[in-house]
Amino acid sequence: MAKRIIIIGAVALGPKVACRLRRLDPDTDILVIDRDNMISYGGCGIPYYVGGDIADIEGLCSTTSHAIRNPEFFETCKGIRILPRVEATAINRREKTLNIKYLDDNKNETLTYDKLVIATGATPFKPPIPGADLAQVFTVADLHAAKKIKDILAKGQAAKAVVIGAGAIGIEMAEALTDLWGVETTIVEMADQVLPTALGKNISKVVENQLKKNDIDVMLSERVIKINGTPTLKVTSVETTKGTLTCDLVVMSAGIRPNTQFAADAGLAVGNSGALIVDRCMRTTDPHIYAGGDCVELRNLISGENITMPLGSLANRQGRVIANNIHGRATQFKGTVGTFCIKVFNMGVATAGLTSAQAKANGFDPVHAILAQHDRAHFYPNSQLMCINLIADRKSRKILGIEAAGNQGDAVKARVDAIAPLLQTGLNVDDVCVLETGYAPPFASAMDIINNAANCLDNILDKQNRPIDIMDFIQKFEDGKTRVLDVRDAKEAAPFIKKYKERWINIPLPELRARIKELPENQSLCLICGTGARSYESQILLNQNKITNTRNIQGGYAMLALIAPEFIQV
Amino acid sequence: MAKRIIIIGAVALGPKVACRLRRLDPDTDILVIDRDNMISYGGCGIPYYVGGDIADIEGLCSTTSHAIRNPEFFETCKGIRILPRVEATAINRREKTLNIKYLDDNKNETLTYDKLVIATGATPFKPPIPGADLAQVFTVADLHAAKKIKDILAKGQAAKAVVIGAGAIGIEMAEALTDLWGVETTIVEMADQVLPTALGKNISKVVENQLKKNDIDVMLSERVIKINGTPTLKVTSVETTKGTLTCDLVVMSAGIRPNTQFAADAGLAVGNSGALIVDRCMRTTDPHIYAGGDCVELRNLISGENITMPLGSLANRQGRVIANNIHGRATQFKGTVGTFCIKVFNMGVATAGLTSAQAKANGFDPVHAILAQHDRAHFYPNSQLMCINLIADRKSRKILGIEAAGNQGDAVKARVDAIAPLLQTGLNVDDVCVLETGYAPPFASAMDIINNAANCLDNILDKQNRPIDIMDFIQKFEDGKTRVLDVRDAKEAAPFIKKYKERWINIPLPELRARIKELPENQSLCLICGTGARSYESQILLNQNKITNTRNIQGGYAMLALIAPEFIQV
Repeated sequence: MAKRIIIIGAVALGPKVACRLRRLDPDTDILVIDRDNMISYGGCGIPYYVGGDIADIEGLCSTTSHAIRNPEFFETCKGIRILPRVEATAINRREKTLNIKYLDDNKNETLTYDKLVIATGATPFKPPIPGADLAQVFTVADLHAAKKIKDILAKGQAAKAVVIGAGAIGIEMAEALTDLWGVETTIVEMADQVLPTALGKNISKVVENQLKKNDIDVMLSERVIKINGTPTLKVTSVETTKGTLTCDLVVMSAGIRPNTQFAADAGLAVGNSGALIVDRCMRTTDPHIYAGGDCVELRNLISGENITMPLGSLANRQGRVIANNIHGRATQFKGTVGTFCIKVFNMGVATAGLTSAQAKANGFDPVHAILAQHDRAHFYPNSQLMCINLIADRKSRKILGIEAAGNQGDAVKARVDAIAPLLQTGLNVDDVCVLETGYAPPFASAMDIINNAANCLDNILDKQNRPIDIMDFIQKFEDGKTRVLDVRDAKEAAPFIKKYKERWINIPLPELRARIKELPENQSLCLICGTGARSYESQILLNQNKITNTRNIQGGYAMLALIAPEFIQV
Repeated sequence: MAKRIIIIGAVALGPKVACRLRRLDPDTDILVIDRDNMISYGGCGIPYYVGGDIADIEGLCSTTSHAIRNPEFFETCKGIRILPRVEATAINRREKTLNIKYLDDNKNETLTYDKLVIATGATPFKPPIPGADLAQVFTVADLHAAKKIKDILAKGQAAKAVVIGAGAIGIEMAEALTDLWGVETTIVEMADQVLPTALGKNISKVVENQLKKNDIDVMLSERVIKINGTPTLKVTSVETTKGTLTCDLVVMSAGIRPNTQFAADAGLAVGNSGALIVDRCMRTTDPHIYAGGDCVELRNLISGENITMPLGSLANRQGRVIANNIHGRATQFKGTVGTFCIKVFNMGVATAGLTSAQAKANGFDPVHAILAQHDRAHFYPNSQLMCINLIADRKSRKILGIEAAGNQGDAVKARVDAIAPLLQTGLNVDDVCVLETGYAPPFASAMDIINNAANCLDNILDKQNRPIDIMDFIQKFEDGKTRVLDVRDAKEAAPFIKKYKERWINIPLPELRARIKELPENQSLCLICGTGARSYESQILLNQNKITNTRNIQGGYAMLALIAPEFIQV
């Protein structure tokens, strides 16, 4: 058993390693250092503190039993010594020493260690834009920044804001600014979609529309090139490639950079992301140095490639693994499948695995099914539509990813969580067709959306279902050659017929068998119904009657409303 | 490809087989028969119809697009012929013929088949109790019974009811009677707990208390021996082993019996339950006859034994498998892990796998961990306590089962569904310690309850945590020799100290290191905190100070409140 363990970093992973280790061994000398004076806080809660869901910043530093997690708490309750305002400056691996600097008086000291744990996390990236150093330009770095942002809002000093970056933190911060404080907020994102690393095109469009519906402007494929301010350093506007946005607050959420320079300087291997390379025991390339959390790369268990996955949940799980290994009990953290969830106003969004684009980039041949269905028995009160995108590899039929969104967030999470941990087992489409999850009318349909998504994907792979995505349909429809067969009721189809005339045909499914001769035989036909089920049924029927130039609009009218709300304004 | 397919039974599985088969092949002759005139309804929705969540019975027979699923619907929309009010009376397997009887005119007919599908379901068991045939004694057999029960309630003809059996349907019906109609309801159950096949002792006690809290009387370990009535056949009272309960309505939910007599008569193999034996392609012992749904036995994928698992969800999944196989595409349904969920007033309860008792009966050596924890980040608004019981085999560390309950049902289901499909992969405790489910503060804690439950189980297996269940603690405490160390705040402990004097010691965790010498050294000590986490921390600390005769009360005060609410009335 090692004698002295030094842990660099006292948020999430660091304290977890320390506490677990103390419980495993009362005698080890454990020291935790941190640059900050605020430690062991729930950083993921910052947007909810800014947005008022959490009234006091203490809420983010407290245990469930309302104790503040400060150094004294760790000393008395956990038997752990934490030194705040102390920075690690250099590692001497041969000597097994760590140079530290006391930030309050600039004193330096050299400490010896038996095992070192690097839990230094990551720092938000501040793009080198002119004006990025103005006051009222923030990153969501820590509780100090969070406090400053909330102070500005509370004093009414921000009426308009620009959020740079439509990743998770950008979206959560935009919601916080808008929802409680009524700040007019614009998100500017370089990529052509929101949540570009987490979601594929379809579900990201659902999220984008959800933001817009809640009065957030979303500008995609756009860069901020300059931030303008007054001589007193106040922000006045942001210049993008396409124009100028007046604003008095800027929040940058343009990604993060791992805090690993001092570790790289000591010769520890880092990956392309700049984060440390660790093995499955969370050991760096030095067997006496462990690392985890936002400053390491993890194996993506589907693609096999290394990625960073900066989540407090993974950091905590890794912390226990590191403590076990230091204690001499071999324990592994194999990697991640990228499970992720986010609340976007009253919508829950969850995802795991690869998006179609990521799957393609990793050499797979992705095929996907998009489905809209009720989250509980459709006859049960409070049943609401949820949408799912399930992705599999064409040849191996292995599930590569899942994305879901809906207004009952826990129900959305339930579907993704039922798939996520299975992804690394090589789960295939057929397994999901019969996936056994809990059923009772208040919680699910007898044929749950998960099973139906797999059935749908199976039908697509089997070429029984020839689908088209909403956005592709709209493009195709705009070219003027494609007609739509709407198999819903006459009343539902009427406004579309009024607008699109003979290009929008309505034959309700119950009449389709009898009226099939009315349909043009070789013309391109897109089939639509409420959610994609009846249009699939229609496609089969048309197939069986030799009308084969058809595409089934995935998710039907429900997805059309979510992805292209402007299209249904008829 | 077979020419003529006859499907016996037009609820859940039957129609699913028919519709899938029609989509796979337009030419097969498919005939579905059913004894009833009401077909393809959501039988699981009956309690919600009786309880008023669903206003009209049509809701249970409608598609999501509000079409009534009657024979005409199947003919026009699905291309399927359904004959209602027709009973299968005999199978001649050598001739491949089926004898049927038209129930309205008692005519008989013999039909030939190429493949036969038995989807006859099950009938509620009516215990042979004197008085069981009185009017106002019901089973929840079908929509006719549902209508009759609701009529009686709507007319105000029932003020007091007895429900026989505390299985899922009994509990759902008791809630329906009480919640909307204010009927004084008593559940009488033979076993010593509610939901005896689904839950272990601890979580079943939580459900029992939830029922009692909502004004339902629960009588356990008790049998109904007679139902008394008036000459006009009205029910007046029910006699149990212990006394007489006046009532004017009796609902029997004492299990079901598969409708397989005609199939057994034809020589098809049936198991101990009376349900048909099928292989993983859902074929009976006759290769031309398939069966599924409530009339078959399924392999329990954990115990390896056959069980019946009458759920519409499984029936529908099996339906697709049968259709695929008939169409010539080998598809398997491997079995079940017994995933189950139920709403009990505002509480959601979910479970999968084996209970501890079932695990023991199947030769395992079960160890369990019980945990109470918030279902989302504890600092997030609307965060609520959930409890989980996670069960593993001591030697192999394989997860055998999980049970959970909490007030946000979808969140409860999310946890169980994340484990359930993995159970058949041989998932072990260590896998669940690092199980990757979606994390964001509105949906989970950074250390989710699932991971913490596994950590807790790991600690128990590792003998770091020596736990005691609530009910065992109460028994132990009543013997007068055990003392309690309460490590919560003085204020929280005060009422217990007032009641139990020196038998209830309070040292808040932050003071424990300093005051450890105040503790008796060799006396039996049960440790309690809010949820079990701080008492575990205390147990470690006491261990490290050679005070080892301690037991950690699993789930702490939170579980005490759920399992023994009378104990906290101090």
